[in-house]
Amino acid sequence: MLFISDTTAGVVPEILQALEKANDGMFLGYEGDPVCRDMKARFAEVFESDVSVFLVATGTAANALALSVMTPPYGVVFAHDGSHINVDECGAPEFYTQGAKLAAIKGANGKIDPTGITAALNDFPKGVVHRMQPGGVSISQATERGTIYSLEEIKAISDLAKSHGMATHMDGARFANALVALNCSPADMTWRAGVDVLSFGATKNGALMAEAVVFFNTDLVKDFAYRQKRGGHLFSKSRFSAGQFLGYFQDDLWRRLARHSNAMAAKLGARLAALPGYELDCPVDTNQIFVKMSSDRVRHWQEAGVQFYLWSGDPTEARQLVRLVCSWKTTDEQVDQLLEVAKG
Amino acid sequence: MLFISDTTAGVVPEILQALEKANDGMFLGYEGDPVCRDMKARFAEVFESDVSVFLVATGTAANALALSVMTPPYGVVFAHDGSHINVDECGAPEFYTQGAKLAAIKGANGKIDPTGITAALNDFPKGVVHRMQPGGVSISQATERGTIYSLEEIKAISDLAKSHGMATHMDGARFANALVALNCSPADMTWRAGVDVLSFGATKNGALMAEAVVFFNTDLVKDFAYRQKRGGHLFSKSRFSAGQFLGYFQDDLWRRLARHSNAMAAKLGARLAALPGYELDCPVDTNQIFVKMSSDRVRHWQEAGVQFYLWSGDPTEARQLVRLVCSWKTTDEQVDQLLEVAKG
Amino acid sequence: MLFISDTTAGVVPEILQALEKANDGMFLGYEGDPVCRDMKARFAEVFESDVSVFLVATGTAANALALSVMTPPYGVVFAHDGSHINVDECGAPEFYTQGAKLAAIKGANGKIDPTGITAALNDFPKGVVHRMQPGGVSISQATERGTIYSLEEIKAISDLAKSHGMATHMDGARFANALVALNCSPADMTWRAGVDVLSFGATKNGALMAEAVVFFNTDLVKDFAYRQKRGGHLFSKSRFSAGQFLGYFQDDLWRRLARHSNAMAAKLGARLAALPGYELDCPVDTNQIFVKMSSDRVRHWQEAGVQFYLWSGDPTEARQLVRLVCSWKTTDEQVDQLLEVAKG
Amino acid sequence: MLFISDTTAGVVPEILQALEKANDGMFLGYEGDPVCRDMKARFAEVFESDVSVFLVATGTAANALALSVMTPPYGVVFAHDGSHINVDECGAPEFYTQGAKLAAIKGANGKIDPTGITAALNDFPKGVVHRMQPGGVSISQATERGTIYSLEEIKAISDLAKSHGMATHMDGARFANALVALNCSPADMTWRAGVDVLSFGATKNGALMAEAVVFFNTDLVKDFAYRQKRGGHLFSKSRFSAGQFLGYFQDDLWRRLARHSNAMAAKLGARLAALPGYELDCPVDTNQIFVKMSSDRVRHWQEAGVQFYLWSGDPTEARQLVRLVCSWKTTDEQVDQLLEVAKG
Repeated sequence: MLFISDTTAGVVPEILQALEKANDGMFLGYEGDPVCRDMKARFAEVFESDVSVFLVATGTAANALALSVMTPPYGVVFAHDGSHINVDECGAPEFYTQGAKLAAIKGANGKIDPTGITAALNDFPKGVVHRMQPGGVSISQATERGTIYSLEEIKAISDLAKSHGMATHMDGARFANALVALNCSPADMTWRAGVDVLSFGATKNGALMAEAVVFFNTDLVKDFAYRQKRGGHLFSKSRFSAGQFLGYFQDDLWRRLARHSNAMAAKLGARLAALPGYELDCPVDTNQIFVKMSSDRVRHWQEAGVQFYLWSGDPTEARQLVRLVCSWKTTDEQVDQLLEVAKG
Repeated sequence: MLFISDTTAGVVPEILQALEKANDGMFLGYEGDPVCRDMKARFAEVFESDVSVFLVATGTAANALALSVMTPPYGVVFAHDGSHINVDECGAPEFYTQGAKLAAIKGANGKIDPTGITAALNDFPKGVVHRMQPGGVSISQATERGTIYSLEEIKAISDLAKSHGMATHMDGARFANALVALNCSPADMTWRAGVDVLSFGATKNGALMAEAVVFFNTDLVKDFAYRQKRGGHLFSKSRFSAGQFLGYFQDDLWRRLARHSNAMAAKLGARLAALPGYELDCPVDTNQIFVKMSSDRVRHWQEAGVQFYLWSGDPTEARQLVRLVCSWKTTDEQVDQLLEVAKG
Repeated sequence: MLFISDTTAGVVPEILQALEKANDGMFLGYEGDPVCRDMKARFAEVFESDVSVFLVATGTAANALALSVMTPPYGVVFAHDGSHINVDECGAPEFYTQGAKLAAIKGANGKIDPTGITAALNDFPKGVVHRMQPGGVSISQATERGTIYSLEEIKAISDLAKSHGMATHMDGARFANALVALNCSPADMTWRAGVDVLSFGATKNGALMAEAVVFFNTDLVKDFAYRQKRGGHLFSKSRFSAGQFLGYFQDDLWRRLARHSNAMAAKLGARLAALPGYELDCPVDTNQIFVKMSSDRVRHWQEAGVQFYLWSGDPTEARQLVRLVCSWKTTDEQVDQLLEVAKG
Repeated sequence: MLFISDTTAGVVPEILQALEKANDGMFLGYEGDPVCRDMKARFAEVFESDVSVFLVATGTAANALALSVMTPPYGVVFAHDGSHINVDECGAPEFYTQGAKLAAIKGANGKIDPTGITAALNDFPKGVVHRMQPGGVSISQATERGTIYSLEEIKAISDLAKSHGMATHMDGARFANALVALNCSPADMTWRAGVDVLSFGATKNGALMAEAVVFFNTDLVKDFAYRQKRGGHLFSKSRFSAGQFLGYFQDDLWRRLARHSNAMAAKLGARLAALPGYELDCPVDTNQIFVKMSSDRVRHWQEAGVQFYLWSGDPTEARQLVRLVCSWKTTDEQVDQLLEVAKG
């Protein structure tokens, strides 16, 4: 019973077929091939906007490269304390921005808000040469806690960012999961809400290795292509990354997969919450569940062969926070099996 | 008629099948999955040595990351003037090493030798704080000119490097092509000849996106894993990169593909050289041909629909140096067709 | 009435005389001249240890360069939230370390303690490749709040650092002020308490431009000289930096100056605290006073021509935190004048 | 007999007096004090232009920081093979530009010209994402060989730079020596000849530690102040750097000192050239002499106590190139003494 990450699930068959399709013909790549051109056109349709799209190998690369054109090296990026860029990328943002600082803002349910950003901004007054300077804002949709920002919340943050001369980045490693949860259009959740640049991830939702940086504010693009190349993220056979996105968008595959994993998580979360000894730590908006339980139960789960993530990292704590993730491949049976263990 | 690059050829069917095979099961990735374990064991067999292997997205990333553990930021990497790291990576080595210098050494047929390195070293005396310090040596096998170093030549370079306290890196973007040309073992061409770390490329020889950094000198590995992650090159679904290598090594696929593209190039080179008005600029050791011709002929080729690379980049020169590349997919018919054009 | 910083005071006559003395003779510099040799010998005496000393232009450079040999680029330096390195150096630590993170730890009176460091360390588990890695600890003595660590407090922090494989850095921009306040030896306050490397500042205490990086743990020195040069901090006429230190240590000048500024601050702090409407925000251990007052009083002071620093940076707050600094040049009369204003 | 460098000579008395004068009063520094304001006004007069001036600790810092606002991190700076930035700064330009490349151009007498730059530019076509991009041009006036560019030569280079969208930097570590040799105005030798930014050095010509970055093209300044601070080159007591420049410009001191050292070198060069066994390697335009002699003579000079620089660094060569430098302090007697040795 593997509930440790949505990346465990491998690739959906439709994406493998898309790879085979992308293999037709011979083309010089480097994002200049016909598959890439189709992919870019597809992104423009999906987002109802003339976006600029760049392909990279990982979500970490997408985030760090996106930030690198937002902030100067002496700039500050405002993000949640527990955000992926702040916690799980081994300093990739600092590397690609060549020394920017992440201002880690606290906030319930993995979310930041204008109040927290404003307070943090106070430490970095504009024009004071001793201080690092406001560089950008980054939010995750869905967040690292599986929660989502409403469109109004996104708008409020991007408005604040803009009023301080900053752009807004969205880490969309689980973009589809948030999108179907909000039941809005991709445009609504991004540029119409003031987002300037998006890390658009497909890997966690069934692709093989497909991550893109999508610019809505094309003034920001600047020298992105050189930075991408310099980071070793310009693919010679780019059509195989582009092809995955074509498969992903085909027949609404991406939304179908995300709806499924969200539904599995909703069921699992609701049932667990109804059991004695389990307490949800935050709303189950997408495909992640954060649940508190005793360390005795943790041991019981482990002995029963359930794989999951101890959020604190400290197995000696009496009360544990556990993360469970459902994927496009998670089945009703697997959820039921886990619930059996949970009852035990 | 596409002779512009070996990356145009797409993916061999065996590698696509290997991807499907890698899709079986559910695993946490990040190079900890069973497919990666198999891949690493396979590399150890192939190289007859207990190597350390890391997967990355591109050859540029492999090279730059390998150099980053060889040289300090104030170090100098000695390489050929026309090497990929010096010319075609938009400063990725400078980025990943955080400011090292590439000392560009001239040399016939794309190769450097101990004399050239020794002369260049003279500018960087050890222990003089005003000068950048010797950081490493990098050679390409095959070279950017399609030529190869003999085992003795590699040994002479790595011996010199060692005597100056430097490690030796090999850019093996076309490793298989060189290997079958030399008809030796992978071990002979690398660690037995003193190579410390190798960028092992499979993408140009039929893979989808499969590049690895292979350490023979495991003292060099140091903090490579952190640097890889920080560069956005640690894959969550690492099994799909690893799986490509399993397919690549299976039934000697890699050598068969390389032998084919080399044979196509040998035929094309020999036939062209026999035609009036064409002159080979360097030996055709592997799958690349460098041929000089008049700009009239260049125009004729272009009008006939042949795609190739003008090496000087300057279409106004009277006499042009043209690069032609054969791939695993190049056919006898295509070569004959091109020869027909060449005669015309 | 200038109480805004101790850097306003210019240079003590003894240091100007030392400069003239250093001007005798002709020497090749770059820290190889006889004045530098004398200076280094003097440091060894003062610290009762065979230290390695390097001269730089500013305290910011001293701090950032010291950190650059402690932490890898993907490392974390644990320091107080309000420390100079975290707040007032425009990202110099991030620049010189090439991307390290500062973990900003809260703590009363500008001080951190083992509990705070331990909690922060929890976010950066050793060996987890997704996480930045423990890189070093930095404390300021005296702190940015003018307070001091006891020898036991320093020892407890450096012991904790060591137990996690980290070195301890001390920002001694106001080292002399702390030293005379603790009334201990330089050795006691540094290496005997486990400090590995010190930014030793003389500029704020009467020198012209004299900052040094002092290594007690010479294993840490590694390639410091190259990093210093590369930062543009190796002086050709190094004897004029070295000469200032010779003057500074001569006849205990440094302690005399520090005692004076501390005494002025002690008097000012005590008298202010005794007046209605003023409240000290932290102990006055050295030459800085942090006092709370109404914004009406702030305006009154400003109209009376007192120059000082509004700590919050926000002049609209009802209750203000004000920093006052005494220097080697502050006189009893100036303090009395200010107290008259304060009473008004 | 110290002819090894002009930095050996210490400080002229007028500059020490200027330091004492700068010590009057109490001011907050960081380039906001009245001495700095006077200094900036003085620079504007001297250069007949509304320049932007920033103070730094060393010529290396001035050069590297100037380049950092000219070129992107993936840019190329075109400079002479033997330039200080390429040879003697331990990679400071690479550090401050965060990874730019120096294209080392050969040229007689330490000078580059449009032909050499144009040839080098060919390797870095604009807009090709695989290649580093044209970033800037840097020339030294006087050069590392003591020679000078004519105004026409400077103009030809800066015109070429501009036509490729690049700015032109001048390393003026020995600016005054070149200026009096050309007998033109500072404006003529810089912005009127198309120079955008200048490293203006006073240290080699009698100051204690006084280097400035002077922008004629103020569009280039951009975020220079943040980069300066981040490099640890913003002085709290900036008035003592500024004061040196006030003394330097006072009563034409700078030109007088430079004329003297040039005259000493002219005499020494001419007399040496007239002796058998000595051959000037390049014209003696300023205060440096490059002379070829047998290694026997080198030994003889060394035994006679003459200190100088072996340019090749290799004492085993039969024929040696020796550098001799005269300073503001070099006397006729010292020159005569050296000539006596040379005859012996």
